[in-house]
Amino acid sequence: MTPSPAAPADLVITGCTALRHTGAGDAIEFTEDASIVVRGGIIEAIGEGVDLPDAVERIDARGQLAMPGLINCHTHAPMVALRGIAEDLPTEEWFNDVVWPIESNLTDIDVELGARLACAEMIRGGVTCFADHYFSMDTVAAVVEECGTRAHLGEAYFSSQGPQGRERSLEFALRHRGGADGRITTALAPHAPYTVDDTDLAATADLARTHGLSVHIHAAENRDQTDASLARHGLTPIEVLARTGVLTGDLDVLIAHGTGVIERDLPVLERTNGRTAVATAPRGYLRFAWPTTTPVRALREIGVPVGLATDGAASNSSLDVWDSMALTSLIQKSTEGDPRWLTSRQALDHATLQSARAVGLGERIGSLAPGRKADIILVDLTGPHTQPVHDLAATLVHSARSSDVRTTIVDGRVLMRDRELLTLDVPEIVRELGERLPALVDRSHGRRIQEYGT
Amino acid sequence: MTPSPAAPADLVITGCTALRHTGAGDAIEFTEDASIVVRGGIIEAIGEGVDLPDAVERIDARGQLAMPGLINCHTHAPMVALRGIAEDLPTEEWFNDVVWPIESNLTDIDVELGARLACAEMIRGGVTCFADHYFSMDTVAAVVEECGTRAHLGEAYFSSQGPQGRERSLEFALRHRGGADGRITTALAPHAPYTVDDTDLAATADLARTHGLSVHIHAAENRDQTDASLARHGLTPIEVLARTGVLTGDLDVLIAHGTGVIERDLPVLERTNGRTAVATAPRGYLRFAWPTTTPVRALREIGVPVGLATDGAASNSSLDVWDSMALTSLIQKSTEGDPRWLTSRQALDHATLQSARAVGLGERIGSLAPGRKADIILVDLTGPHTQPVHDLAATLVHSARSSDVRTTIVDGRVLMRDRELLTLDVPEIVRELGERLPALVDRSHGRRIQEYGT
Repeated sequence: MTPSPAAPADLVITGCTALRHTGAGDAIEFTEDASIVVRGGIIEAIGEGVDLPDAVERIDARGQLAMPGLINCHTHAPMVALRGIAEDLPTEEWFNDVVWPIESNLTDIDVELGARLACAEMIRGGVTCFADHYFSMDTVAAVVEECGTRAHLGEAYFSSQGPQGRERSLEFALRHRGGADGRITTALAPHAPYTVDDTDLAATADLARTHGLSVHIHAAENRDQTDASLARHGLTPIEVLARTGVLTGDLDVLIAHGTGVIERDLPVLERTNGRTAVATAPRGYLRFAWPTTTPVRALREIGVPVGLATDGAASNSSLDVWDSMALTSLIQKSTEGDPRWLTSRQALDHATLQSARAVGLGERIGSLAPGRKADIILVDLTGPHTQPVHDLAATLVHSARSSDVRTTIVDGRVLMRDRELLTLDVPEIVRELGERLPALVDRSHGRRIQEYGT
Repeated sequence: MTPSPAAPADLVITGCTALRHTGAGDAIEFTEDASIVVRGGIIEAIGEGVDLPDAVERIDARGQLAMPGLINCHTHAPMVALRGIAEDLPTEEWFNDVVWPIESNLTDIDVELGARLACAEMIRGGVTCFADHYFSMDTVAAVVEECGTRAHLGEAYFSSQGPQGRERSLEFALRHRGGADGRITTALAPHAPYTVDDTDLAATADLARTHGLSVHIHAAENRDQTDASLARHGLTPIEVLARTGVLTGDLDVLIAHGTGVIERDLPVLERTNGRTAVATAPRGYLRFAWPTTTPVRALREIGVPVGLATDGAASNSSLDVWDSMALTSLIQKSTEGDPRWLTSRQALDHATLQSARAVGLGERIGSLAPGRKADIILVDLTGPHTQPVHDLAATLVHSARSSDVRTTIVDGRVLMRDRELLTLDVPEIVRELGERLPALVDRSHGRRIQEYGT
């Protein structure tokens, strides 16, 4: 039921500087002394001098900047339980010797506690939506419902699980689509072309078409995977996805990482007409010493949205999307050898509208505008590290930190106010998770959920 | 006068986990439930089960980690006034079109306000000592005296200033050596081999020898400078410093950046027997798209201490040494193509003892041990982004952030307690600096303090 316009608004924010998109790409402006009116989870009005109705809740945001909540376009949220346990290792040892053996112990309660801790971290860091690709995802969906954030969820599977893997992924996607009052969207989530065979990939594409679902998959994560795929199939991972009907331009596909995307992949991606997106999580690429990063510039030139991500905390150490934003700008400048490229405004474009498109919500989130979902963060810019301000975009991207986010709002509901989380109890989560850890990290059994060998 | 042992201690910290060095290099251990007793600015006792005397001030640090304060081994603190004003530019345009024209407007009051803001940012970020290389340094020394932090200061000069430049640098170094109750140490501060000629470099080396002073200089900042030096002199910048008597092993020399250090420089540096140190500030190298970073591994192998730094905020966007610590680890892994290199414990070594050596205070700070200066930070590890803890070194380097520093202590005096700065008034500094900015950033005069051309 839509509330009557005469009824009080749910939330009114006053006195902020508002980041607003004035067009496509990096066309961003900052409106001073702006107000935002929220009703029914939607931004009803925003700007300077808007009429301010009565409201159930008011926030005086003087000295703060309002911007769209950050979007974590690829993570494995419950893996925060493994933060710091597999350090200073090459990719293969990280998977085979530590992470996949530990994940063979995973229980629903581990996933639940990990997801709660992850949501706490993300809400505190200004992340209002995350694309999760993991196991026991019913549990993650329940945590999203409970804590009030937004998520794009997929139940991961390998072909080694047999046909049941992709069936469970489909059932999950259908069961939770539109869940949590519409805050949950879903995707089919095959793990990667090196762990999911062509038959399963083709079946996944058919299921996606039949049910109107998107696909979220790791592909061309690094150059080694591309080289191995070429040696095995004569095709790159991207070409494998095209041949199996996943990347044919009639499905929305979210590809994680893509640091192994090479020149010949670009026409394949371009032919999908903006329906393929790539999520970049640069911290992990540095840590694993991968030789390349996501080719953001080339992807941007062919109309492929690039969203920001953290991957799981076992490789990224945090779910800090703000850090991914700054690091993406720096690493892109360095990799392209061009200090003029990936400006602060372009970084903000990736953090907002491009990330929203990457998770299939390009029309609903990613921008503060009437009719958009009220996913809003308020950022304190009064700290000595963000003063003075000569260029607000630069201050935001390169000087501000996730810890400067004071208030996080999703679907019009305040989930953190003045740094206090309102829907999650961190000390209790940490205590319960601590009790689970000895059993979770035990590797004496010698099992692993899957073998990494590109 | 040394207080009598029967007198109350100045400060007692209880219940923390303490980061302690157990040997050279990355030999670090964490002592749980530790206490620290401070008297006369010195750590008197530290460990589990130490006798706790009466104390003027007590801090209950349960849930927090005590570690040596961070050291910013190369910055231009007052340049925080220019944070964000010269974005997305190559090095030469950054210097010639923006920074050096603006710096021709600098007044003592600009430097004073910038230094205050910088000290506020650094104390909040857990930095307890900074090596500054700038102009109007009497003013910076006064700010250090006033706000209670520690600093290694040098008055910068170019040969274009005539012999007065190096004379002022010497006078400054002699006037302030041992100032602020010993918290200030000083260095001679020629700008760089491309702006200071051989005569001035040789004279600087003689003055350093005569007066027992160290030298702080930019050299081989990037590969272009090395190439230009080779083309002009047939010598690298490092070889120029050796030929002019600066790098001859009988002086303590702190070199900023050194990303242009090449293979043939290594024997020159090695022959100085650990008396040459290099400060690395990797964020700026990415931003300017320099092709290389500081060769930390090669320098470590020949016994050259590498300290962490931020450079000025006009290129680094912040004075966040915590960020430099994490980024140094990540960029070194990536550059060396080796995920096992520059572990978290090695990063902590660079952040503590190696940085202390770099600023000439290797015996006095950089480690929590009896007899060392009480430069201590307390870090909150209860946030969701730092939980759970599987490996405390990894948590510190890669998950914690400068904003997790709750309390900063220099020379036994608490300068920030529970995030509240006790010696600096940020809103007032920002207000006063804001009034100065229009005159400071005016470039209509067409002047610049110096020409950049490597």
